[in-house]
Amino acid sequence: MADFNALATQFTQFYYQTFDTDRSQLSSLYRDESMLSFEGAQLQGAKDIVEKLMGLPFQRVQHRISTLDAQPTGANGSVVVMVTGELLLDEEQMAQRYSQVFHLVNNGGNYFVLNDLFRLNYG
Amino acid sequence: MADFNALATQFTQFYYQTFDTDRSQLSSLYRDESMLSFEGAQLQGAKDIVEKLMGLPFQRVQHRISTLDAQPTGANGSVVVMVTGELLLDEEQMAQRYSQVFHLVNNGGNYFVLNDLFRLNYG
Repeated sequence: MADFNALATQFTQFYYQTFDTDRSQLSSLYRDESMLSFEGAQLQGAKDIVEKLMGLPFQRVQHRISTLDAQPTGANGSVVVMVTGELLLDEEQMAQRYSQVFHLVNNGGNYFVLNDLFRLNYG
Repeated sequence: MADFNALATQFTQFYYQTFDTDRSQLSSLYRDESMLSFEGAQLQGAKDIVEKLMGLPFQRVQHRISTLDAQPTGANGSVVVMVTGELLLDEEQMAQRYSQVFHLVNNGGNYFVLNDLFRLNYG
């Protein structure tokens, strides 16, 4: 149990730290077969995914994780992670809540994001 | 693209309809290797999962899906689904927002839930 929870925690910390400092660096976490569903938009491949993330209309962003749950998705070390959290954009005072899923696939000990699904929680 | 979206929509409609009418019937959707993370509690196996769901302290519940996103998780027809939605308990007037992930695994054309992660969205 410890291993996939530790992996999920380490990955999400690294992911959001990278996102919040220089999101162009996220490309190393995705591959050609990776998919992103972002507020209903569907992208595939590291290049298109990072272009989408780079093009989001804010300069500064800060993610805070509220809850993190992880489970193995089979015997090969791959893991599904569900995050709920808050993000703060630019000069805004009010955080926005979001939900995000990562499916991390183990490729010989190196993990990449195969599935990435993101939604803001309105209401 | 159409197939996994249609599968995800059909599955979630069936799942929540079953949950809201007779949640004991959900056991057919889980197997021994299935996992549930429910508000931080971790369960494994159809029996323990359905016992957990049956023991939740409300008589009536109504789920409403707000957003649904789906992606294939490989070449074998398996699908990851992220739902955000609202649920209304018993006589309460105020819906609670939630996020839920299902990893649906294709076993010779029959799908079961391998991974199920659920969180209420507080705040």
